[in-house]
Amino acid sequence: MSAPRVVVVGATGAVGKVALRVLEERNFPMSSLRVCASERSVGKRVNFRGEELEVELATPPVFANSDIVFTAVGSAMSREFAPMAVEQGCVVIDKSAAFRMESGVPLVVPEINPDDVEGHQGILAVPNCSTTQMVMALYPLHRANPIKRVIVDTYQSVSGTGAEAMEELTVQSGQVLRGEATQPEQYPHRIAFNILPQVETFLDDGYTTEERKMRDETRKIMHAPDLALSATCVRVPVPVSHAEALHIEFEQPMSVGEARELLATFPGVSVVDDPLTSTYPMPMDAEGRDEVFVGRLRQDDSHPNGLALWVVSDNLRKGAATNGVQIAEELLRRDALHRNGA
Amino acid sequence: MSAPRVVVVGATGAVGKVALRVLEERNFPMSSLRVCASERSVGKRVNFRGEELEVELATPPVFANSDIVFTAVGSAMSREFAPMAVEQGCVVIDKSAAFRMESGVPLVVPEINPDDVEGHQGILAVPNCSTTQMVMALYPLHRANPIKRVIVDTYQSVSGTGAEAMEELTVQSGQVLRGEATQPEQYPHRIAFNILPQVETFLDDGYTTEERKMRDETRKIMHAPDLALSATCVRVPVPVSHAEALHIEFEQPMSVGEARELLATFPGVSVVDDPLTSTYPMPMDAEGRDEVFVGRLRQDDSHPNGLALWVVSDNLRKGAATNGVQIAEELLRRDALHRNGA
Repeated sequence: MSAPRVVVVGATGAVGKVALRVLEERNFPMSSLRVCASERSVGKRVNFRGEELEVELATPPVFANSDIVFTAVGSAMSREFAPMAVEQGCVVIDKSAAFRMESGVPLVVPEINPDDVEGHQGILAVPNCSTTQMVMALYPLHRANPIKRVIVDTYQSVSGTGAEAMEELTVQSGQVLRGEATQPEQYPHRIAFNILPQVETFLDDGYTTEERKMRDETRKIMHAPDLALSATCVRVPVPVSHAEALHIEFEQPMSVGEARELLATFPGVSVVDDPLTSTYPMPMDAEGRDEVFVGRLRQDDSHPNGLALWVVSDNLRKGAATNGVQIAEELLRRDALHRNGA
Repeated sequence: MSAPRVVVVGATGAVGKVALRVLEERNFPMSSLRVCASERSVGKRVNFRGEELEVELATPPVFANSDIVFTAVGSAMSREFAPMAVEQGCVVIDKSAAFRMESGVPLVVPEINPDDVEGHQGILAVPNCSTTQMVMALYPLHRANPIKRVIVDTYQSVSGTGAEAMEELTVQSGQVLRGEATQPEQYPHRIAFNILPQVETFLDDGYTTEERKMRDETRKIMHAPDLALSATCVRVPVPVSHAEALHIEFEQPMSVGEARELLATFPGVSVVDDPLTSTYPMPMDAEGRDEVFVGRLRQDDSHPNGLALWVVSDNLRKGAATNGVQIAEELLRRDALHRNGA
């Protein structure tokens, strides 16, 4: 087939903007590119490979002339646009939580479960940003020595919420420094110089939807339905990149040396770990990078088969846009674009 | 005996200033108060109960005329001044890490192990700030149902490092907002809008001294030598109050309801936990308060006897100054000031 015709829905949002950059950087093969967003952005122009593209509304005729649709919008909008695009014959790569746990929707991190793309019925899902960077660190270890249980506590940047939250952190930080009052809008409380032990909404059992996703999506991606995982997801006053403290329990003991070797040789993972020079992954260094950075590797001496480590990655890139484009590349490589009813 | 003569060493530092405020607030009985600090602060004046006190150098003659010395300085200086004060007949309540793990030095959180003050030989130690707020949440539960293992990841404010680090966060935050370069001084890397998975210095096994303290001090305070505990200690861009995500494994199952009851009735602990209204402990709310705030109580569904929760407290108050003054109050209550050689 000729190069696919591509649409990015949500092209003016935090993830959509990065998606355009990633498509350009990776020189993704396209015979055309259209960019869509909500009504208030229609008519705006975005730059791509030196050309200006005009933002349009996402409508059936747009999708009818397209092959791959990247939806970089919230779940409610994905539920509207993804079926519309599939009906017009497109493959949708969706970054929202709307379809991730549906059977028939592959949830894919291409370094981990690339074969799963084959089973798609039109929609493929990009995992939650916190999940993706975690499984990138877990899977190379799990493959060698099955993981029984994971405890993870997160340090998540505001860009996970969106462009408005990034602006809110900037504005509030200035207000606090000047001794002015602040007004939370994107979060229930002030985020500047503060920490919120809440990412998304609470479920009946006291966990949040974000914490639940980290467990359920990890099980689906790693094909590990019995994996035990408990997360505390926390928002911190950082613009971009999520950090995570992991405490892993394996079936058998896992030495730090073995873990380091397994991680260092896994594609997409970069080990940054030299305590003597205070070298470890940090959000400010991960921003704008595609790798998942792992450091602070050490034996978890509270468990005979335990290992502790620290993971940082740009939540907008590997956590969202980059992983989505990688899924599209995997589909093209396998000529698996039109498996749905084709 | 008449009311004790008190000295605060390090009175111009982050903890020392709060110590003076706490002595005033709690109306601590004193027949005199002297304030000491390093050479560059000598001659400065600090306010106490409406009077101005002049900062002096800490010397044997100062201690010779005193009964209780609060040392709010680093370990190196505590090693210098604490034995000097003891030699002059004082009881020293030391907030540094210098003596905490020594046998013969009680390490005390008065709500937990008040009897331990009796064994002092002149020096009593205030636990590490991260440890104190954690054990305040662990102990009421441990007493009812022994804890086997704790995983804890921290979100520690810069005031734990000292007044200069608080200033550095403020200065760097402004620089980042204005797009200017920053120069780390108190930390190996920029702390503004960033996160450092390092608190204190690294040990050979990959843990930091702070992480090791959280384990060893907890065992000593709770008289639980076999408790398994693994920590990841992380510095976040917040001025005051530390937060901690805890994942606890008990000998027997512990219901959320029972845990809530045990915590809510423990002195010094305040349960702040209403997910439906996004009510949970946060650093900005804990600042200036003496309580240890606990929330996000939930069954840890990755372990049959697991419980997860979130703890926040002002690291300068209960984490340091308040706990120190409480130890002094406990000594007075028991008339145990002069147990050393008396």
